[in-house]
Amino acid sequence: MKRMLAIVGCCLLAAVMIRAQPSSSPKPYRVVFDLTTDDPQDQTAVLRWLREVASVNPQNEMEVVMYGRGLALVVPGRSTLTDDVKTAIGRPHVSFKVCEIAMRNQKVDKSQLLSNVVIVPDGIGEIVARQKEGWGYIKAVAH
Amino acid sequence: MKRMLAIVGCCLLAAVMIRAQPSSSPKPYRVVFDLTTDDPQDQTAVLRWLREVASVNPQNEMEVVMYGRGLALVVPGRSTLTDDVKTAIGRPHVSFKVCEIAMRNQKVDKSQLLSNVVIVPDGIGEIVARQKEGWGYIKAVAH
Amino acid sequence: MKRMLAIVGCCLLAAVMIRAQPSSSPKPYRVVFDLTTDDPQDQTAVLRWLREVASVNPQNEMEVVMYGRGLALVVPGRSTLTDDVKTAIGRPHVSFKVCEIAMRNQKVDKSQLLSNVVIVPDGIGEIVARQKEGWGYIKAVAH
Repeated sequence: MKRMLAIVGCCLLAAVMIRAQPSSSPKPYRVVFDLTTDDPQDQTAVLRWLREVASVNPQNEMEVVMYGRGLALVVPGRSTLTDDVKTAIGRPHVSFKVCEIAMRNQKVDKSQLLSNVVIVPDGIGEIVARQKEGWGYIKAVAH
Repeated sequence: MKRMLAIVGCCLLAAVMIRAQPSSSPKPYRVVFDLTTDDPQDQTAVLRWLREVASVNPQNEMEVVMYGRGLALVVPGRSTLTDDVKTAIGRPHVSFKVCEIAMRNQKVDKSQLLSNVVIVPDGIGEIVARQKEGWGYIKAVAH
Repeated sequence: MKRMLAIVGCCLLAAVMIRAQPSSSPKPYRVVFDLTTDDPQDQTAVLRWLREVASVNPQNEMEVVMYGRGLALVVPGRSTLTDDVKTAIGRPHVSFKVCEIAMRNQKVDKSQLLSNVVIVPDGIGEIVARQKEGWGYIKAVAH
């Protein structure tokens, strides 16, 4: 009987903990970062923010949209942070998107991009669409 | 009979193409650019983005709101891009708006502005109102 | 009777003035400023914008969220604008919020912050939440 009570107690405790979990980590959110410079301070900052946003709640959704000079971050040889970017791309709930118009302007071919970088036809349009869907917007400037 | 079939075929093809057209150009959107620097790289970028946003869909609505140093873009003599700005102002679905408070701070008179630049009483309020109406927001920084 | 008419007239005038008041100053709005640099030009600009937004309508709600290097603004010794910031913090409808993650990264203790600065667990999350609630968003860059 004692054993029975102990098991029931543990089950109740587990149930309470499971129910309590959602309130312990804040409600997940979605945020799009707008990167338009190749400044290393801006690049470092956006990579750090991705880690930190995920640390607050692993369910948070993040997207980095690059156009103009922002493209450099995902073109090996044009950034010194390539290894960090590869790690970031590999994480769940993170996507890196580059603007096709910016690629054409800068004569960057798809083959020059890091793996798993998504090409979007219109970087600004992508950001506007995300805002429309209720995503938060952060301009990535830190320098 | 063969000729009849060919005509019917052409009509069907034309009908399909017409129906397909709306999906070929993406849904129009509205975006407000927030310019607060007189950095030539930022100025050049915002003018390029206006052209590119229009190229994606000529129905896209664009607005450039200038306050602080952003004002320089529409004051001849304070920017080297005056001709490009004039061209941009002349395009459909584009408007350039300057903050009256910034004009007072910098002792810029209405007569010093390029033609067809709109004066708004509060640049930040204008941007906030646009966001409230569902426009996308892009901070114009590229340097 | 004359006196009676005068009183009625005054009452009517007062009623008209009270009704007219809301339309004389624009509808109040809420705006969050995102500060991530310690550039003095950006810091000066955000303080000026707070004053100007309040001058347009004293009921406007303003919030400055600082993370990354933005933190410097509210750490005496890391900014030359400490007195101006103190004045700004003291005004109604203005709040200054710093990101706890940025404080940890930069080993800044609560005791080092100016009085009445609010600590939030996640600066980016704070901004995203404000946007979700319908606040306008302005990236504070002016350099």
